[in-house]
Amino acid sequence: MELIKKSGAKIVGIQVPEGLKRMASEVAKEIVEKTGAEVIVSGDPCYGACDVDLDLCRVADLVIHIGHSEMLEGDPLLDKIVYIEARMKADVKETVEKATDILSARRVGVVTTVQHVHKLDDIVEVLEKSGIEAVVRTGGKRTRYLGQVLGCNYEAARDLDVDEYVFVGTGQFHPLGVALASGKKVVAADPVTGNVSVIDTTPMLKRRYGAIARALDAEKVAVLVSKKPGQKRADLARKMAALGEEHGKEMVLVYLDRVEPEVLINLGVNAAVCTACPRIALDDQAKYPVPILTPPEFEILLGVRRGDYPLDEIE
Amino acid sequence: MELIKKSGAKIVGIQVPEGLKRMASEVAKEIVEKTGAEVIVSGDPCYGACDVDLDLCRVADLVIHIGHSEMLEGDPLLDKIVYIEARMKADVKETVEKATDILSARRVGVVTTVQHVHKLDDIVEVLEKSGIEAVVRTGGKRTRYLGQVLGCNYEAARDLDVDEYVFVGTGQFHPLGVALASGKKVVAADPVTGNVSVIDTTPMLKRRYGAIARALDAEKVAVLVSKKPGQKRADLARKMAALGEEHGKEMVLVYLDRVEPEVLINLGVNAAVCTACPRIALDDQAKYPVPILTPPEFEILLGVRRGDYPLDEIE
Repeated sequence: MELIKKSGAKIVGIQVPEGLKRMASEVAKEIVEKTGAEVIVSGDPCYGACDVDLDLCRVADLVIHIGHSEMLEGDPLLDKIVYIEARMKADVKETVEKATDILSARRVGVVTTVQHVHKLDDIVEVLEKSGIEAVVRTGGKRTRYLGQVLGCNYEAARDLDVDEYVFVGTGQFHPLGVALASGKKVVAADPVTGNVSVIDTTPMLKRRYGAIARALDAEKVAVLVSKKPGQKRADLARKMAALGEEHGKEMVLVYLDRVEPEVLINLGVNAAVCTACPRIALDDQAKYPVPILTPPEFEILLGVRRGDYPLDEIE
Repeated sequence: MELIKKSGAKIVGIQVPEGLKRMASEVAKEIVEKTGAEVIVSGDPCYGACDVDLDLCRVADLVIHIGHSEMLEGDPLLDKIVYIEARMKADVKETVEKATDILSARRVGVVTTVQHVHKLDDIVEVLEKSGIEAVVRTGGKRTRYLGQVLGCNYEAARDLDVDEYVFVGTGQFHPLGVALASGKKVVAADPVTGNVSVIDTTPMLKRRYGAIARALDAEKVAVLVSKKPGQKRADLARKMAALGEEHGKEMVLVYLDRVEPEVLINLGVNAAVCTACPRIALDDQAKYPVPILTPPEFEILLGVRRGDYPLDEIE
């Protein structure tokens, strides 16, 4: 509130992810009452700090982005954004203690998401009490905190001199990413449910090689390029289109905000290479009528890449 | 093709409405082959000339917008757009002749959509042969042709000194709009199906007054403002928000590209006033969990407007 008053902003934008949308109007009300500014809420879905609402930045003097940590730079519109990170209060100690029972290595990499980065000390403390050395490192440009990973970036997990990892956080996607990026055992400790589990990458790998196989005969392939500021990989898309053409595919570059089944049906393509968020291919394949591949998966399909399964990451 | 070559465009964008998306890759292929330019297809849905892809304009040197007639001005990005209007070959004479059997007036207003405007002479000829005087006028700034109406604009039908109208075109929405805007008898002549019918506004009016009634007790109301360049009515939205507040409603301004049921559920509002495309409220109400009103309908709800049903139009 102080910040808004000081900035002298007359129009304040608010962007929140879907799970927090309901709080948007409460926050709006408070801002209006305390600062007198006009408030405009971003109504489109928001999937991360990669997905900041630049249109809202164009109409507002200041935009409050709730739930994600700062990621992007470059566009002057981004300077209007103030990030308020969402932090979970959930205690991590008990769950991490459970995880130590499954960990067998003496040196363990520690990774988590922005919701729990403020608990990193607690995590390390519990591990050390069990005689386990905790190894953490910074991530890439897209992350802000020690040990922080994103659905599209696992630099904080990569190249650690450890044999196992512990991931603290919710959901299966991030620890799966750590396992695929590192090729090592990952124990996922969910401080919300209290569940602890060892990640099995086999089902995901089966699904992905299945998708690659189904795309083998595709004649017409869309290369999807995202409009979202932190998901726009136009050069990679051009590379994929050229590579496909070289291998006899008919490629079409498609620029879009949201990847949706109807788009692919209407375009009449047999497969797609998605250069937007990697999770679209890995998480949501089931809802699409045609196989959607990540760029490295498309390279496997064309036979120009071999070796371990290549996780698609955005740097 | 000549135009693209002459313009020297290196990156050409293509935007087509959903029904024509499949032709996008054919057109793309032809452009690549004949001009050597890179082609990028807009993958997001496109609902009219109000819905031009400004993001695509930002990355392309020239954008071909297929299917709609030019509507907007003001933004320099719009200068990059070349409009290729879709015209239907369907012969209109037979259907209009059928329509003359149902028309009882001697002076009849003639309205149609861009797909058939090139057949206006044929329509007038058939009417005159039957001894009916055809009256046509230009529409507003958003239309280009004599007698042309849009889903959001019926100026070409308004204030004609006639007792009846003939609408030539497909679908029920446009002739319904003519009937609501004029308050007069409208005969719809569909040259594609060959069907001719008199428009009944009663079911639509019942539905709309039903929606207004359901919204009466709504405490928290979203005012939806579109990001689409030709649907952005921010001043009207502000007016609605202020009017609602005056009448004790909690109003929240929501800025969005696509109006979707999830948005309204997640925001936790009980009703919405839509300042974007009027068809969202009138055509699609059934898919929303809460009543969505047009701005004049919201004025009825608040008791600040009386009289005939007020069609929402964008000028």
